[in-house]
Amino acid sequence: MNYRVLPLTKLTEHFARLPGIGKKSAQRLAFHILRMPENEAREFAECILEAREKIGYCEVCKNITDAPRCAICTDETRDRSTICVVEDPRDVIAIERTKEYNGLYHVLGGLISPMDGIGPEALFIKELLARLEDGEVKEVIMATNPTVEGEATAMYISRLLKPIGIIVSRLAYGIPVGGNLEYADEVTLYRAIEGRNRM
Amino acid sequence: MNYRVLPLTKLTEHFARLPGIGKKSAQRLAFHILRMPENEAREFAECILEAREKIGYCEVCKNITDAPRCAICTDETRDRSTICVVEDPRDVIAIERTKEYNGLYHVLGGLISPMDGIGPEALFIKELLARLEDGEVKEVIMATNPTVEGEATAMYISRLLKPIGIIVSRLAYGIPVGGNLEYADEVTLYRAIEGRNRM
Repeated sequence: MNYRVLPLTKLTEHFARLPGIGKKSAQRLAFHILRMPENEAREFAECILEAREKIGYCEVCKNITDAPRCAICTDETRDRSTICVVEDPRDVIAIERTKEYNGLYHVLGGLISPMDGIGPEALFIKELLARLEDGEVKEVIMATNPTVEGEATAMYISRLLKPIGIIVSRLAYGIPVGGNLEYADEVTLYRAIEGRNRM
Repeated sequence: MNYRVLPLTKLTEHFARLPGIGKKSAQRLAFHILRMPENEAREFAECILEAREKIGYCEVCKNITDAPRCAICTDETRDRSTICVVEDPRDVIAIERTKEYNGLYHVLGGLISPMDGIGPEALFIKELLARLEDGEVKEVIMATNPTVEGEATAMYISRLLKPIGIIVSRLAYGIPVGGNLEYADEVTLYRAIEGRNRM
């Protein structure tokens, strides 16, 4: 016989579908929902709906936003001559955390990956080219991940941009700060030596 | 300047409040919600509300249920002469998974823990005693965790039950199946030797 409590089972299954959450964790989270204060559980549910309803893509840079244009694109203090091209809105958050970059962004919404059937036309590349037409942008920084797909996408876009006469740059490779040479892989170490700077 | 997208920040904070989910995971989960199909996100939110609205405690054994009495208490095929006492509804699920136990349960809703200010009166112990009054129950199995609080609670309840003339038993201690003697702690190994059985 089956003694499952259906609403709990359904909630557990929903948690288990989230990335990185296994069956045991999903059960623990579902039980946590049962024990949390009533209003907190309601707020949580409302936040899920609200996030889906209110969040969309910025019409300029394709970053996520709850307005037609994102807060970075509408910020008059940002340097409009530089665009940093990233795969995902999370990469924007990561770069903003450095507090060092003051230009604009362009979110591709993915990477070129023939293995997964994702070609250049599936990404927001046309939209990037359209932003470069008025000549205000002088430099495009390719900040895709240092993976095969990230490299291929950076290479593809840089080939499109160079003929227009725009400076195309790529994030520096090297050893991570606080890292250990002993554990660095050969390719990273080679790139770190190749890209060495004068002290 | 702050470029946060408020609905996303709120959702991330709610995820981060769940047990075992850090800031990075919370962000990943919030982004996942943005990308999942619309109807799945809505169902997830509804499941949270439904679980809170429909799930309550069984009036007999205090297990969770979406009816006045839980499916185990209402199942006529279960052995009504044995009650297994556990801390939490999750322990019921764990024991049910063994498919070996056919008696009833009683969920205490916690363990006696003077350090946290939890005394016997905060647990469903009175309700357990009430269930023993008609003399149908012959044995009570104490299946609280093998921790200090679990032991203390089992001891406290067994002292209340013994004068009534009910058999009180405790889960066996020993080495876990598939475990390694080398890694077993001294107390567990001592208990395993002490509780040895004839082959």
